[in-house]
Order: sequence, then structure tokens, then C-alpha cells
Amino acid sequence: MPQQHRAKLTRRAILAAAAEEFDLIGYEAATLSSVLRRSGITKGAFYFHFTAKEAVAEALAQQYLLNLTAMRQRWSGRSLDPLSTLVGLTSEAARRLERDVVLRAGMLLACNRIGAESDGWYEAICELVLKATEAGQLRPGVDPAEAARVLYAALVGAHTVGDEPEGLVDRFEEIWRVVLAGVARDGWRADAELTGRP
Amino acid sequence: MPQQHRAKLTRRAILAAAAEEFDLIGYEAATLSSVLRRSGITKGAFYFHFTAKEAVAEALAQQYLLNLTAMRQRWSGRSLDPLSTLVGLTSEAARRLERDVVLRAGMLLACNRIGAESDGWYEAICELVLKATEAGQLRPGVDPAEAARVLYAALVGAHTVGDEPEGLVDRFEEIWRVVLAGVARDGWRADAELTGRP
Repeated sequence: MPQQHRAKLTRRAILAAAAEEFDLIGYEAATLSSVLRRSGITKGAFYFHFTAKEAVAEALAQQYLLNLTAMRQRWSGRSLDPLSTLVGLTSEAARRLERDVVLRAGMLLACNRIGAESDGWYEAICELVLKATEAGQLRPGVDPAEAARVLYAALVGAHTVGDEPEGLVDRFEEIWRVVLAGVARDGWRADAELTGRP
Repeated sequence: MPQQHRAKLTRRAILAAAAEEFDLIGYEAATLSSVLRRSGITKGAFYFHFTAKEAVAEALAQQYLLNLTAMRQRWSGRSLDPLSTLVGLTSEAARRLERDVVLRAGMLLACNRIGAESDGWYEAICELVLKATEAGQLRPGVDPAEAARVLYAALVGAHTVGDEPEGLVDRFEEIWRVVLAGVARDGWRADAELTGRP
């Protein structure tokens, strides 16, 4: 059905243009006109899909949350050990956030809308660090809740301190190296493959 | 000179009211009227000290930066080892940021104005971690620049992830425990006194 296909492409073009615009000048500063100008799509076509800029933001945030859920499910489906799962999951997220402006905009919008702690990352980290403790991957004496909070703060901070999305993968890798040196049992290290490096 | 003293108190009251207002509803949303209402100070008295809301923000940011410089100088003057200096400095900052709304507002304003990396914290951390390496406080093989970046990300993240300023001291302490477990030589630990605990 070519018409449905075209509609899908239009919707995707609007989301991409809005994400680029939000990424460049921020959600508040971006206007519907600037998004339309960037997408080359007419007002009529826009209103076929969305009611306003806010609705586009909502869709971007939703898409990010769905993506995150899918990523988590994929990684837990691999039946790796908990720490490898966590390193792999965060590394894939960093890689995708670095490259994909639609995902990046969605994350920012989701975090601002629902509060930084409730997009699922904090829960995912807590769960996997707890499983890592149960699996004996953490050093004796390490408090899993504390380790999860520090990891989460560092990963959130890595987004904040770098102005550019480039380098997020490296910043995440550094965090893993430093934090795991303190909390993981000697001898544990994620497969190079898991961190997304060839 | 009682008049000069009164002027000083008025200026301080304006800064405190503005800081509380910015802290509560954010700098953008706060208006000059809401600051005046909170401070109980007349427009005339306000304009004796400041030209506009922006000038109050500037003064708060400046005051924060001066405070930070003074704190750094005080801690380097104590001739402690580099890691103890760094833990002590960040712990004092956390304690003061937790309690002092004027400092907290100043930090946020300073960071937004000059970019999160240039309020001096990143440089302070890098410098002290490097000195810690030279003093043999870090484990062999630890890259000081990497350790400093991760620490900085975690400390910045600790501000972001907690909605409330309460708990900042605890979040900073956790970060030190987890990160130092990975990067500091065995046996090193900051004096309890340094972390500001009795």
C-alpha cells in the first residue's frame, strides 16, 4: 500500500526533523515552523500526523522508551552473566545515542517529562547489579544498591559533562573500567565484543 | 556605619530571596516581583543594588565562584595528601550545597552561564588526581585522566539524579567509596574527619 508507506515516511521525516531541531537549539526554542522548514513537509501533512510540537515530543519520548525496553529484552534474552549483560546494554545504548539523533532527542524529552530516574535505566541497573551480587560477580563487602547508585550517577553525569554526543561510548567505557575495578571480583572483565568494539 | 551595614543586609536579603525563588521554581520562571515579594524589599531598595533579575543571578554566580576558590585554597593550604584533599574538598562542598540555598543557586547559575566544565571543579579534580598519582596514592596502571573524568561525571551526576539537595553528602560519599576502591592503593582511606562526619 504505497499511500500508507508514504504516510509512514512522512511521519518518520517529521520525527527526524524535530529531533534534529530539538538537538540543535533545544525543545523550548524550537518552533513548529522551524521543524517544518527543516523537514520540507507542509503544514497540512504535519497536521495529518500530529496536533502540535508537543505531540511530536511525546512521540519521540515514547519511541525512546520502546527502544529502551526492546534493548533490555534483547540483552536479557542472551543469557549472559549479569555484569556482561549490564555492560553490553549500556554500551549499546551509548553507541546508539551517539549516532542516532532521534533516540537522543527522545531520551532528553522522556527524562524531562517523567523525571530522570523513571525512564527505566535506574531500575535496570539496580536489577542487574543485584543479580551480579547473587551470581558472585561482585567483591565481598560491596553494597549492590550503593554500587548501582554510583554507576547510575556516573552514567547520567557522562551525558551532562560532554557537550557533544560524540565520545559517549568512550565515556561509558571509562566508567565501566573505573567502577568495575572497585566493585567486580578480580578476573572479571567484559568480553571486548560486549562493549561493542570490534 | 549603620547605613552601610543596612545596605549590606538588604543586598544579602535580596540574594537569599532570589536564590530561594530560583531554587523553588527555577531561574527562568522567577520574576523580579516574585523575588521582591519573597524578600519583602521595595523596588526602590532593590534598584539601589541591582539593575535587574539578571544582575542578581550574576552576583549569585560570582559569589559561588569566589566561595569555590576560597574553599580550594583553604584545602590546599592544609598540606594534606592529594586524595585526602580532594575527598575533603568535595565533601565540604556537598555539605555546604546541601544546606546553603544561596550557594546552590549560585552553582546552577554559574554552570549554565559558563558551561558545566569551567566552574573550576573539573580542573581541581584533574590536578589533585594527578598529584595523587605522583604521590603514589593510585594503583599502578590507573590512568589519572580517566579516573578524574569518571569521578567528575559521577559527582555531576549525583547532582542530577537526586531531585532534593538533601542526600548530596551521602551520594558523594558513596562515589568516593566505590571509585576509590577501584583506583586508590589498598590501605588508603580518608580520615573520617575529612569526610565531614563527626
